Amino acid sequence: MTIQWNEMIVPDARALRASEIRDLLKVAERPEIISFAGGVPDPDLFPLADFRDMFDGLTSDETAGRRSLQYSISEGLPGLRQWIADDLAKSGATRDIDNILITCGAQQALDMIARLLLEPGREIVMEKPSYLGAMQAFSMRRPNYVGINMDEDGPVIAELDAAFAAGARIAYLAPDFQNPTGRSYTLDRRMAVLETARKYGAVILEDAAYCKLSYEGESLPSLLALDEVGSDPDAGTVIQLGTFSKTLAPALRIGWVTAPRPVIRQLVLMKQAGDLHVSTINQEIALRAATKLFPAHLETLRDAYRAKRDAMLGAMDEFMPDDVSYSRPKGGMFVWLTLPENIDSRALLVEAMEDAKVAFVPGQAFFCDQSGQNTARFSFATEKPERIRAGIERLADLIRRKDNQ
Amino acid sequence: MTIQWNEMIVPDARALRASEIRDLLKVAERPEIISFAGGVPDPDLFPLADFRDMFDGLTSDETAGRRSLQYSISEGLPGLRQWIADDLAKSGATRDIDNILITCGAQQALDMIARLLLEPGREIVMEKPSYLGAMQAFSMRRPNYVGINMDEDGPVIAELDAAFAAGARIAYLAPDFQNPTGRSYTLDRRMAVLETARKYGAVILEDAAYCKLSYEGESLPSLLALDEVGSDPDAGTVIQLGTFSKTLAPALRIGWVTAPRPVIRQLVLMKQAGDLHVSTINQEIALRAATKLFPAHLETLRDAYRAKRDAMLGAMDEFMPDDVSYSRPKGGMFVWLTLPENIDSRALLVEAMEDAKVAFVPGQAFFCDQSGQNTARFSFATEKPERIRAGIERLADLIRRKDNQ
Repeated sequence: MTIQWNEMIVPDARALRASEIRDLLKVAERPEIISFAGGVPDPDLFPLADFRDMFDGLTSDETAGRRSLQYSISEGLPGLRQWIADDLAKSGATRDIDNILITCGAQQALDMIARLLLEPGREIVMEKPSYLGAMQAFSMRRPNYVGINMDEDGPVIAELDAAFAAGARIAYLAPDFQNPTGRSYTLDRRMAVLETARKYGAVILEDAAYCKLSYEGESLPSLLALDEVGSDPDAGTVIQLGTFSKTLAPALRIGWVTAPRPVIRQLVLMKQAGDLHVSTINQEIALRAATKLFPAHLETLRDAYRAKRDAMLGAMDEFMPDDVSYSRPKGGMFVWLTLPENIDSRALLVEAMEDAKVAFVPGQAFFCDQSGQNTARFSFATEKPERIRAGIERLADLIRRKDNQ
Repeated sequence: MTIQWNEMIVPDARALRASEIRDLLKVAERPEIISFAGGVPDPDLFPLADFRDMFDGLTSDETAGRRSLQYSISEGLPGLRQWIADDLAKSGATRDIDNILITCGAQQALDMIARLLLEPGREIVMEKPSYLGAMQAFSMRRPNYVGINMDEDGPVIAELDAAFAAGARIAYLAPDFQNPTGRSYTLDRRMAVLETARKYGAVILEDAAYCKLSYEGESLPSLLALDEVGSDPDAGTVIQLGTFSKTLAPALRIGWVTAPRPVIRQLVLMKQAGDLHVSTINQEIALRAATKLFPAHLETLRDAYRAKRDAMLGAMDEFMPDDVSYSRPKGGMFVWLTLPENIDSRALLVEAMEDAKVAFVPGQAFFCDQSGQNTARFSFATEKPERIRAGIERLADLIRRKDNQ
């Protein structure tokens, strides 16, 4: 008998769909295209020589080298978790190593939290727009998305309150330099979000992937740091996700989740059953890199990305027609464009790649309700400032021509 | 309001339970204990100096080095998948790179297959005993386990047939040097397993984690290689799992799954949503290591582990009482003990660690029906031959004293 795969693959797995946009954007990898599409860091900013020295130091040490090639505990290396706990403490969050699990990037933390807290039909509150990768991870659990609108200060609190009042008990939020909009919450809005969650006994899943990449002085405290319940290791309103993918190198696949101990204990069992642990040697290298290179390396990143952001915003100010609006991020990697209502950003992308040799990501995919047809995400992370300016100018010309059609 | 974690954690995640044995065996890490408990390779056999050279070579190359630190595709590096396809071809299995997904160790492949093919109440056929980690991965999907008995030649075909006849459509099998028993299937039994699966249109999930560690000449062909349907890239009876954890280093966390393309396509989407991809740099290193070090390194491993196996079997032959029986593995890392019916191996472990300073893993945890109270798994992988002999002698004395009680 032939195997009937369609009957065998379970509904949860069938919920996964290939992204059309991803296929379209494969073209964006050609060198003649100026690409604002990627969500990846600038590889020229990876501290390659430092990594070489650190790998050499580790593998030249007979004991530490062999240990770094062996299986290790599912929780993650104690030294690395301690570094993360110490770093959180600097930002005002009191969490110890028992509150931290090392994951294969923050993406795996999203997937694991979804497996812990979501099931078919359960509600999860999402910003509109929100991180596409989070929706992909959550979708395997087939939840009901409850989208809430954002204003310039953060999520609209009346909508968050209404979502919790209607029964939702988990909200996925990114208060710092959000992917895709680049927007951050004000301090007041952070406090209001926490107060609303506490009113209902709801959990905030805080994505802090970009929080270190701030380009204008001091960052605001995270929701985790503001959560006064968080000083009890067994309690807390906030589960926070972090990563070295934006600050060291994505290929290490090192992220983490910070949560109350009852959550971490269950996640550790899931990690053990799921893939045992994160690469031991990569954890050792990440610990050495963070200890040795921070904060100077972070300053290097901030200076470089700030210049790129300024190039993008400067070119947009100079070239974009008045009916195009855009965010003014204080950190992260992204600027969010809102086009005139009659311009569909998917159609624009096809023309932009053909005529203007420019790529970006149409915004619709970032909305859990498939709205936002006239929006787009622009990354300033990988192109050089001159090419950023040239690309924006070419795209602005195209939009102007469409306006006049 | 306080968060009610017990209400929030979904039933799938609550199915995960901490292992008592694992806690007990933490004691086994003390240096005075001779440990046969670990399921890990001997770290003295890691090719540390080669790894140092390969990391140095990769990170000294400006282009390849930066690329190895960046995000990469979810399928896994094409070069690494090609190496695996070529290696499979040598064993007679015709699979190309579109049939292969790189995973975080074979453990993640188990978890991903479970998410693809299992759901609460769906049957999965398991060997009695079987790999504990597979049961941990599968348990998150809350399947119904259908245990089948093994004889010296492999699974009892009448039981496999009965399981499929009753509705099961997937069987998890380890034909080579199985963890925990060390047993392998005969060629005839391999053919009979495949024929039985084809009769019902059932899937064989073949765990090939130990297949390279053969200590007595040529290996038998895998179920994948014997599956004649497997020459069609879109079809096949067998999904096979492989890993570098036993042959290079577990800390790289590099395994793979080989399957018909309709399965791989869905697994790639799951990988993308789940954790994006396996560490790029670790994949690059694994490819260089496999290309450069195999097959000579495999011969080194085989010689070293063969000597350890011989030390363990020799000591058991010399010291164990007649009412203790054990497997005679031709490869892998494990010997399987069957004690007299009146001896509970959990109770024996407590005494063994206290009195004889010897550790092993009680066998019950490897049975999906919690039978096997008088069985135990012994790993010969990590201890030196002299300590293996001393440990077996001490344990045999203890068992003899219990026999006489």
